[in-house]
Amino acid sequence: METVSENTCFGGQQGVYTHASEACGCDMTFGLFLPEEARDAPVPVLWYLSGLTCTHQNAMEKAGAQLWAAEQGLAVVFPDTSPRGEGVADDEAFDLGQGAGFYVNATRSPWAPHFAMWDYVAEELPALIGTEFALDMDRQSITGHSMGGHGALTLAMGLKGRFRSVSAFAPICHPTTSDWGRKQFTAYLGEDEAAWAVHDATLLMRAQGFDGPILTDTGTKDQFFGLLGTHDFAHAVAERGQPATLRLQPGYDHSYFFVQSFMEDHMAFHAEALHAAAA
Amino acid sequence: METVSENTCFGGQQGVYTHASEACGCDMTFGLFLPEEARDAPVPVLWYLSGLTCTHQNAMEKAGAQLWAAEQGLAVVFPDTSPRGEGVADDEAFDLGQGAGFYVNATRSPWAPHFAMWDYVAEELPALIGTEFALDMDRQSITGHSMGGHGALTLAMGLKGRFRSVSAFAPICHPTTSDWGRKQFTAYLGEDEAAWAVHDATLLMRAQGFDGPILTDTGTKDQFFGLLGTHDFAHAVAERGQPATLRLQPGYDHSYFFVQSFMEDHMAFHAEALHAAAA
Repeated sequence: METVSENTCFGGQQGVYTHASEACGCDMTFGLFLPEEARDAPVPVLWYLSGLTCTHQNAMEKAGAQLWAAEQGLAVVFPDTSPRGEGVADDEAFDLGQGAGFYVNATRSPWAPHFAMWDYVAEELPALIGTEFALDMDRQSITGHSMGGHGALTLAMGLKGRFRSVSAFAPICHPTTSDWGRKQFTAYLGEDEAAWAVHDATLLMRAQGFDGPILTDTGTKDQFFGLLGTHDFAHAVAERGQPATLRLQPGYDHSYFFVQSFMEDHMAFHAEALHAAAA
Repeated sequence: METVSENTCFGGQQGVYTHASEACGCDMTFGLFLPEEARDAPVPVLWYLSGLTCTHQNAMEKAGAQLWAAEQGLAVVFPDTSPRGEGVADDEAFDLGQGAGFYVNATRSPWAPHFAMWDYVAEELPALIGTEFALDMDRQSITGHSMGGHGALTLAMGLKGRFRSVSAFAPICHPTTSDWGRKQFTAYLGEDEAAWAVHDATLLMRAQGFDGPILTDTGTKDQFFGLLGTHDFAHAVAERGQPATLRLQPGYDHSYFFVQSFMEDHMAFHAEALHAAAA
């Protein structure tokens, strides 16, 4: 692992690191904010998964997370959204290939050799940061934006017992019925929709739910509202009786100006779960 | 004036606008955050002047200003840092020409036809936004970062009575003795250093000071510390007995991770001046 940069921020440190990823077969870059408390003892970890076109950098610079993470004593990890580089398959469309990994392990050509973002975020990167930094990997929560909200919800439900709480900003909630989902799952996983189900938050909610609290925010003027499946996820949550707070925020769109506006709430939500006495 | 974008943010609105600038002889773009209160009545205005290489966009996305501006009920204007476009002179160096206007009116070729950032920020843009938006132009304060901190301090002292308070993040304080200053003033204003003095915060502090409070923050690990002249400005402030708080922040560098870490303090500082009963 190599250090790209480390900047003092809100009394803690915002770092950027690269490492050779086995899962993705390429160098991967991630951001990690460590609050001041990490100098003394391991701190809880919040994962922030980003959306289409993003690298590790966008949320790290624009989501306004560090202020509240410092206040709550949480580390925040900002993974990239796909493998990258020469020799890694790509597509001209912004919503397929590099920058659009969709947090799945691709099984189809030309994506399979590198596009293993599920394994990367679920296994390889946690193992790395748990070794390299003062993080308490027994206390993890997860959030994300748009495609990253999809990732947060599906990882939280798919990895039982891993995350204490999950939240999302404008998440893609029902990708198996959306143009943000069907196109990518067909490319990465093939046409058999049975393989898609474990990557659809609404289907996972119907099938099993999440053993912890859920918070989502979505703007009523989100320019991609029709692609998100917010209503289907809300229906599944209500049908299951899943503990959750699903909020529609008047006037907000899909941008980081929306995300930062509700970051304080999401950080406080996760901090409550992460600072609670162990279950 | 044309609207480029408007995003709901912290209950208010982050807008971006373009207009044909007479002062700069080109189209200019600026950002404006309006807090929720601006729907009901004109709100006080904080100017945020940005540093080398920046457009209106960097601070608008990375400085974390909107959260506190919303809390304090302040508008924040984010001007560009120079004229831009084809037909506007430029230089290969990052610290001269486009993105490096230094908040002066250039009198020398090839810069004079467009590089009038003093007039733009001091006269043209205030007139425009005072007409177009619900802003109380009798209540203005100013801040900035690096070259923009230089701009904030020199405009505040140069335009007597205009600004109630001035602050800066890692400001260039003594440009007439720095490579961040001598090069640009020579190019824009010519070799006669007499013309430079009104654009040097340390010289202005020695000559006249500021009729209001001053707050500056500079990181002890600022990678450009040697170019800022922080010590000379501190000396001049102390010699004059100028009301001011000059802070050196341990471990911080020159980045927006530094700026955002102290934004709350700067916003509270300006809000106190701007919400006070009229002088």
